[in-house]
Amino acid sequence: MATDTKDTDLRIGVDLGGTNTKYALITADGDILEKGRIKTGDYPDAAAFVDGLYDQLLPLIEKHNAKGKLKGIGIGAPNANFFTGNIEHAVNLKWKAIVPLAKMVSDKFGVKCVLNNDAKVAALGEHTFGVAKDMTDFIMITLGTGVGSGIFINGNILYGCRGNAGELGHTVIRHNGRVHWSTGLKGTVESYCSATGIAITAKEMLENAEIESQLSQYKGDELTSKAVYDCAMKGDELAISVFKFTGTILGEALANFALFSSPEAIVLFGGVMRAGDLILKPAQQSFEEHLIESYKGQIKLLDSSLNLDDAAILGASRLV
Amino acid sequence: MATDTKDTDLRIGVDLGGTNTKYALITADGDILEKGRIKTGDYPDAAAFVDGLYDQLLPLIEKHNAKGKLKGIGIGAPNANFFTGNIEHAVNLKWKAIVPLAKMVSDKFGVKCVLNNDAKVAALGEHTFGVAKDMTDFIMITLGTGVGSGIFINGNILYGCRGNAGELGHTVIRHNGRVHWSTGLKGTVESYCSATGIAITAKEMLENAEIESQLSQYKGDELTSKAVYDCAMKGDELAISVFKFTGTILGEALANFALFSSPEAIVLFGGVMRAGDLILKPAQQSFEEHLIESYKGQIKLLDSSLNLDDAAILGASRLV
Repeated sequence: MATDTKDTDLRIGVDLGGTNTKYALITADGDILEKGRIKTGDYPDAAAFVDGLYDQLLPLIEKHNAKGKLKGIGIGAPNANFFTGNIEHAVNLKWKAIVPLAKMVSDKFGVKCVLNNDAKVAALGEHTFGVAKDMTDFIMITLGTGVGSGIFINGNILYGCRGNAGELGHTVIRHNGRVHWSTGLKGTVESYCSATGIAITAKEMLENAEIESQLSQYKGDELTSKAVYDCAMKGDELAISVFKFTGTILGEALANFALFSSPEAIVLFGGVMRAGDLILKPAQQSFEEHLIESYKGQIKLLDSSLNLDDAAILGASRLV
Repeated sequence: MATDTKDTDLRIGVDLGGTNTKYALITADGDILEKGRIKTGDYPDAAAFVDGLYDQLLPLIEKHNAKGKLKGIGIGAPNANFFTGNIEHAVNLKWKAIVPLAKMVSDKFGVKCVLNNDAKVAALGEHTFGVAKDMTDFIMITLGTGVGSGIFINGNILYGCRGNAGELGHTVIRHNGRVHWSTGLKGTVESYCSATGIAITAKEMLENAEIESQLSQYKGDELTSKAVYDCAMKGDELAISVFKFTGTILGEALANFALFSSPEAIVLFGGVMRAGDLILKPAQQSFEEHLIESYKGQIKLLDSSLNLDDAAILGASRLV
């Protein structure tokens, strides 16, 4: 990594998560010059967090001679509203109520700051640097602890009239199904297709299992989607069927989404996608089964090509 | 109706349906100068249909001195593709395969002709002349023999990348539910919430009924959604519960749609909506129950304000 750069157009991308906040200095071409992370929870409030972020980023800006070239700071965060620049009632952050984060960061750094929802930022990253490059219409589904979505329509992110469009994880796919741990809604996509949902499915299947499974060695909270993945990779039948069940539900939901916006592709992203074909193949089959004739074979289901760690900071850098 | 008009900007709107084709000469303000209809099925093929339409419209154009003022002809039709100007594999028309109707009409009349899907045209009518006037983001659901949809995003109709976005009637709302008579898909919105679906629900409920119902006087195909409506208006409990069941499913589906595009309103239109509050009230309750907190109370469910007969021809006139 060069300590000087010929780039005259640099951005800072920030991926603000419940546990970690990752940041990087990034060129217009998406080259990461240098990156780092802080623990979001180490800061008691948003003002302290902004100060902490500044303390980390200032040496990095100076080292790369970036001051005059810095176009701005883009931040992806949960419950962030692009229209207002606020984080609103975040479930997974210490800071409650409404935090005007974009303004706070802009005031502290003296440059433009743009805030946006994390799934929309990931979609922006995919659109600029990933498999959705040059696509005008696609849907990005993020499968992590929760299920998020970022939707591109005619080359632009869909915001709807309140800035909060694309809550596809909360759509119902199983009437009167599993109760969601946080929203209380029944049978939503997130209840089944998130890492959290996969762990619940594994527990349920294990309780009713008539076959031996390595999953039984994991007790309580140890039975994570990661554990299911590890067992599935060793050929464990029950673990494989957990992903098959999840993929089948996911594919049905994706067909519903496709019938709304008729996209060129649906891109799947996030920790759950480490399972690869274990979830993608049943999803693909179920997806096609639930489409009408004129849609069949027309819409690609794609695994994101972005590095899981970098997608959000790359996308965030494109906000400015 | 004046035989002369000061309007210098006239359009012809055509609503091409499986049974009837309605047409009208319309001003830019949406005033219908004169209208008429022909039987779509009276013509053996599309060429004969275009000739028949010309024979009807020519005297009307001459009578209103409209020749030099005619901006063009807009047509709403089932299975019509705005991108191509073709009617593609229409299920309810005699003309199969692909019919380049826009070109045929344009060649015959010597003016511009724009073709579009019937539900999108109804949405355009609602956006120009109805309750969705000045709304940039709304979803129009047409509840007739089938269930169609026209979606507005940022002030424009959503087409997707193949021109066929907005097939919301074919989304799944009851996993492994009722098999659709035409698509073979299970548990789709159209299977339950169309007039056809309502008649099936009535038959099923009647078979399992433990209460007396006036519905039992209707045999076979006589048991239509219209019959259910008539009985419900006379206070028949079973008929009322048919609409309650339908509205509850509809509301759940509408919540799914809302979570995609975060619209200002969802507008309900079509013959089924003659039932008014019988269907709207349970739909409203179920809709709100299936939304996440940040969406609750934010999105209006509206009954279309357009005359059922005129909405499509008015919308079609706005295509040009």
